[in-house]
Amino acid sequence: MMHLVLADSEIELNPFNKKEILDSSLHHSIMRKHGMDARRRGRPDIVHIFLVVAMESILNKMSMLRVYVHTRNNEIIYIDPSTRIIKNYNRFKGLMVKLFEDGAVPVEKPLMFIKKKKLADFLAEIDAIKILFTRKGEYVGISELHEIFDDDIVCIIGGFPHGYFLTRGIEKMVDRVVAIHRTSLTAWSVAMEAIAAYERFKFK
Amino acid sequence: MMHLVLADSEIELNPFNKKEILDSSLHHSIMRKHGMDARRRGRPDIVHIFLVVAMESILNKMSMLRVYVHTRNNEIIYIDPSTRIIKNYNRFKGLMVKLFEDGAVPVEKPLMFIKKKKLADFLAEIDAIKILFTRKGEYVGISELHEIFDDDIVCIIGGFPHGYFLTRGIEKMVDRVVAIHRTSLTAWSVAMEAIAAYERFKFK
Repeated sequence: MMHLVLADSEIELNPFNKKEILDSSLHHSIMRKHGMDARRRGRPDIVHIFLVVAMESILNKMSMLRVYVHTRNNEIIYIDPSTRIIKNYNRFKGLMVKLFEDGAVPVEKPLMFIKKKKLADFLAEIDAIKILFTRKGEYVGISELHEIFDDDIVCIIGGFPHGYFLTRGIEKMVDRVVAIHRTSLTAWSVAMEAIAAYERFKFK
Repeated sequence: MMHLVLADSEIELNPFNKKEILDSSLHHSIMRKHGMDARRRGRPDIVHIFLVVAMESILNKMSMLRVYVHTRNNEIIYIDPSTRIIKNYNRFKGLMVKLFEDGAVPVEKPLMFIKKKKLADFLAEIDAIKILFTRKGEYVGISELHEIFDDDIVCIIGGFPHGYFLTRGIEKMVDRVVAIHRTSLTAWSVAMEAIAAYERFKFK
């Protein structure tokens, strides 16, 4: 099984209107007015594209993938593998509001639920080789990436647009810290390469 | 070079309000009222996610990818490899309106431009092996996909949510018709696998 974790993701309710998700492309001026880092926070679009890429992958269709979103506020969103992520961005944000409000969606028979949990505690629960992806890691080219994989692995990718992980000491929670490219990549580009490499590892 | 073509894409101006892109998640009732196929048409979200996945890939960063969107109305959208696709879906749709109105964005120094052209004429201009991806093709597993690739290839993927290509005789415009999975996949999942396979072919 491959466990894919989007870590320190910039998804949260808008503190000035808890009926919506904070979105820097809409709330830029109020964020700046209140000294919030509008270049980093309020990026539900990253979570959306990441989920749409991961959940629609062949690997997930073959039941070899588990996907989780860890947020800047130390919550973990658990996603059932059968979940079909809403393609429409605005509707996705509406669903995320419900998730933060109710703790699960749909409430009756949840496909996603959210728990207050630190990344360290969450990772400690999974018994598998853990690989952190960051530009600052040791370089492993995408053609060799599958060679460092194992049957059970956890791949951790940053869910923020700039800067570094908020979770302190994250490097100590993992077995390897890896860079697959010399410049920064989007979260879903790293996810796509990790998924393709794991498929390569498994289907060979 | 890998040329990636999203074919028969369901992106067009809203015929009832030409200041916006047709979006079935917003215009469902008016589409049904006028007998338009709301289950198929009005899917700019597919184009958006496809572009965001393709343009942010390592392959594109290494200047080995060219991306095109062919529409249901026989237009070709040409995208400069240096283009950074707007991540926010609503802003992306706004940009697409400008592209359809002005023929290019930004008008001064275009990163994208659109031309009236049939898929057959467009494909005839590219001298490379052409591979059409569809569930109805000959099965080639994702672990063998790179073996049928060449240095110069064109990969053609459907840009619609259901059904088959609108372009008649599309199979005759290509060298191979390939299925990488037994069930239907999203356009960006196929794009991701094609890109990863070509990276594997090139970087080995």
